[in-house]
Amino acid sequence: MKSEIIAVGSEMLTPFRQDTNSLYLTEKLNELGVTVAFKTIVGDRRKDLVGAIRVALGRADILVLMGGLGPTEDDLTREAVAEALSLTLRRDAAQVAALHARAAAWRIPMPQNNLKQADVLEGAIVLSNPNGSAPGQWLDTTYSGYRKLIMLVPGPPNECRPLFDAECTPRLRSLLPARFIAKRTLRAAMIPESQADKLLAPIYTQYHDVETTILAHAGDIQLTLLCTKASLEAAQHRVDELAGRMEEALEDWLYSTDGEPLEQIVLYYLGLRQATLAVAESCTGGMVAGRITAVPGSSRSFLGGAIVYSDPLKTSFANVPPELIAQHGAVSHEVAEALAKGIRQRTGATLGLGVTGIAGPTGGTETKPVGLVYIALSDGQKTEVLEKTFRGDRDRVRQWATQQALDLIRRRLR
Amino acid sequence: MKSEIIAVGSEMLTPFRQDTNSLYLTEKLNELGVTVAFKTIVGDRRKDLVGAIRVALGRADILVLMGGLGPTEDDLTREAVAEALSLTLRRDAAQVAALHARAAAWRIPMPQNNLKQADVLEGAIVLSNPNGSAPGQWLDTTYSGYRKLIMLVPGPPNECRPLFDAECTPRLRSLLPARFIAKRTLRAAMIPESQADKLLAPIYTQYHDVETTILAHAGDIQLTLLCTKASLEAAQHRVDELAGRMEEALEDWLYSTDGEPLEQIVLYYLGLRQATLAVAESCTGGMVAGRITAVPGSSRSFLGGAIVYSDPLKTSFANVPPELIAQHGAVSHEVAEALAKGIRQRTGATLGLGVTGIAGPTGGTETKPVGLVYIALSDGQKTEVLEKTFRGDRDRVRQWATQQALDLIRRRLR
Repeated sequence: MKSEIIAVGSEMLTPFRQDTNSLYLTEKLNELGVTVAFKTIVGDRRKDLVGAIRVALGRADILVLMGGLGPTEDDLTREAVAEALSLTLRRDAAQVAALHARAAAWRIPMPQNNLKQADVLEGAIVLSNPNGSAPGQWLDTTYSGYRKLIMLVPGPPNECRPLFDAECTPRLRSLLPARFIAKRTLRAAMIPESQADKLLAPIYTQYHDVETTILAHAGDIQLTLLCTKASLEAAQHRVDELAGRMEEALEDWLYSTDGEPLEQIVLYYLGLRQATLAVAESCTGGMVAGRITAVPGSSRSFLGGAIVYSDPLKTSFANVPPELIAQHGAVSHEVAEALAKGIRQRTGATLGLGVTGIAGPTGGTETKPVGLVYIALSDGQKTEVLEKTFRGDRDRVRQWATQQALDLIRRRLR
Repeated sequence: MKSEIIAVGSEMLTPFRQDTNSLYLTEKLNELGVTVAFKTIVGDRRKDLVGAIRVALGRADILVLMGGLGPTEDDLTREAVAEALSLTLRRDAAQVAALHARAAAWRIPMPQNNLKQADVLEGAIVLSNPNGSAPGQWLDTTYSGYRKLIMLVPGPPNECRPLFDAECTPRLRSLLPARFIAKRTLRAAMIPESQADKLLAPIYTQYHDVETTILAHAGDIQLTLLCTKASLEAAQHRVDELAGRMEEALEDWLYSTDGEPLEQIVLYYLGLRQATLAVAESCTGGMVAGRITAVPGSSRSFLGGAIVYSDPLKTSFANVPPELIAQHGAVSHEVAEALAKGIRQRTGATLGLGVTGIAGPTGGTETKPVGLVYIALSDGQKTEVLEKTFRGDRDRVRQWATQQALDLIRRRLR
């Protein structure tokens, strides 16, 4: 079954806003065995919208229309579907009452044009929207002799997604052949994308029945494996088999076999070893700590640390001798090592991390270019120091350095 | 002139990847006075692609096709455009030579199927792509009696964008009537979105010739004003007039009249007052420092600080008496105040910031719910403490708290 998602709204045809619901809806449709063959974004012009709906009716079996269900003049999805299919709209008494009740409960006036939200397509089922005033609609109809399933869902994500899950998914499931889907997400850190593909392509191309998607971002590679079969066992078996072979190929670049982010894995290992961590960040300026503290419960293993952006703070918070900075420079193997050791001593953590580098765009020299970063990890006995040169702009250098720092901790604890 | 952007690639019909080039291209087209009326995303199936191109030819004057220009079997954009317009493809000798030269320079083998990248549409101009192997194409043709401008551009952002700027923009400009565009971006912090709209809608709705876009994100409101006129002066005049009235209405919520982010404004004021800043972050865990240090040159005014995630670190890095924590709790007015004062003393900064709160999802109580955050700012004489309760998940609470902290600093320095 082929589907098309139509996002309705002129704001999504500006440089400022993008449809994001369609990624969510695509996942849900795929889980039902439905392929998304087209996505269309169209503005609030009735003629354009009617045309886009007719085009979609000609090339897809399932249509999901998002947005354009509100009370304003620009909300034209109902009218456009009616025109494209030559259906009438009737004002639904129960919906009119619901709109009045909603306005009364919120103690807001109820302008006349709000009532257009109660207009229902001939033959459609009203889909209740507990998070907003505009209900959705479900239409099971024919067009040029072919059966078409058409869903009208509201645009705001907090209305669209719950409504689709509660009202559209069960209806689609009851109409479509049963499908069982197995899914796994593997993640690997700091492996170059080309190397990952060289290692993995010979493996995953043998599994034509498993859909493999590779996403790469600043030192992080995410592999999603998806398989649909007539039984869950069969689907799971294929995904697990492919995942097992990929895990082997990725060796210790692999950090997660179920999609968890790197910071969560680091916290998992810290908990397992009953170890604590503290950080002294210069060029990453709090980004390592920011990622770690994004995980709920991180306070069990993460003590905190210092943002040692200025040289005096490297001394006062992480015991780095000023002479060491004067001799080797703030961005040096020696200062990174001293930061890791110093923050560990100052906080009493099991592990101390130190990061210092040149994020750019200025500050680089011939011997110490922009992108040069030193990352050190100390457990009191051994202090490991990495020297890396990351490419890209300030933001990218800082993201790569943060990822490398977390991966260094993971490798030590593993 | 109406345009349609067609993004080609099955990966953009998965839940994992989204077209982002189209936002960039939309901005560039808008600047030329060209409206984007439709965006279509289509997979690597030839029949679907030919159909989508025919649909676009029927409803738009300018077509930009992105992607599907590479050497693999799945790269079918050239073939599909040829089929849709009944044009032939010819293998261009100069492009064949260029592909061989490129392979030789990179010392990589040159498989036979790479040569399809040298196939050029009958009547098309080859657009050079210095960042990749597949050139773009420009076709000025007719379809059903109407003139159509068709551009084929590569999909990778680092190839697509420079190629469009260097090869497509000048050609479009020479063909389209001269347009002058004025643009301004205003930003405001911590004003509720509904209140902003209530203040501003009566103003901007009077300016039908200025397109106003409002984006809201975690305590930040961004207003973009765009006006196109026959002269730059006329366009600038309208934008500046509307911007002036909006600035007045927004009062001191407004922080930026030219689009700069809040952290940059904070650094600007710090520089102006020759003041320095240090932070002691608990629940935001480094996010305030992370945003500030994202700005190049932030080291001139930002000293650093401490991530005081554990209670002992609140004492050792920011001089918070353990008794104070025992008496009032780590999340309290008193501890926030002590953090701000303490980090200021410890670092010698002009201003000290303290943030402590309950980001959730657990840790809330009846008197101290999830979302409660105390933010304090001290200059040694006066210490201001804000108590806020932010709604939403952990990530959202932390983002709002970070924004509120930066806004508190801005208001003090202004």
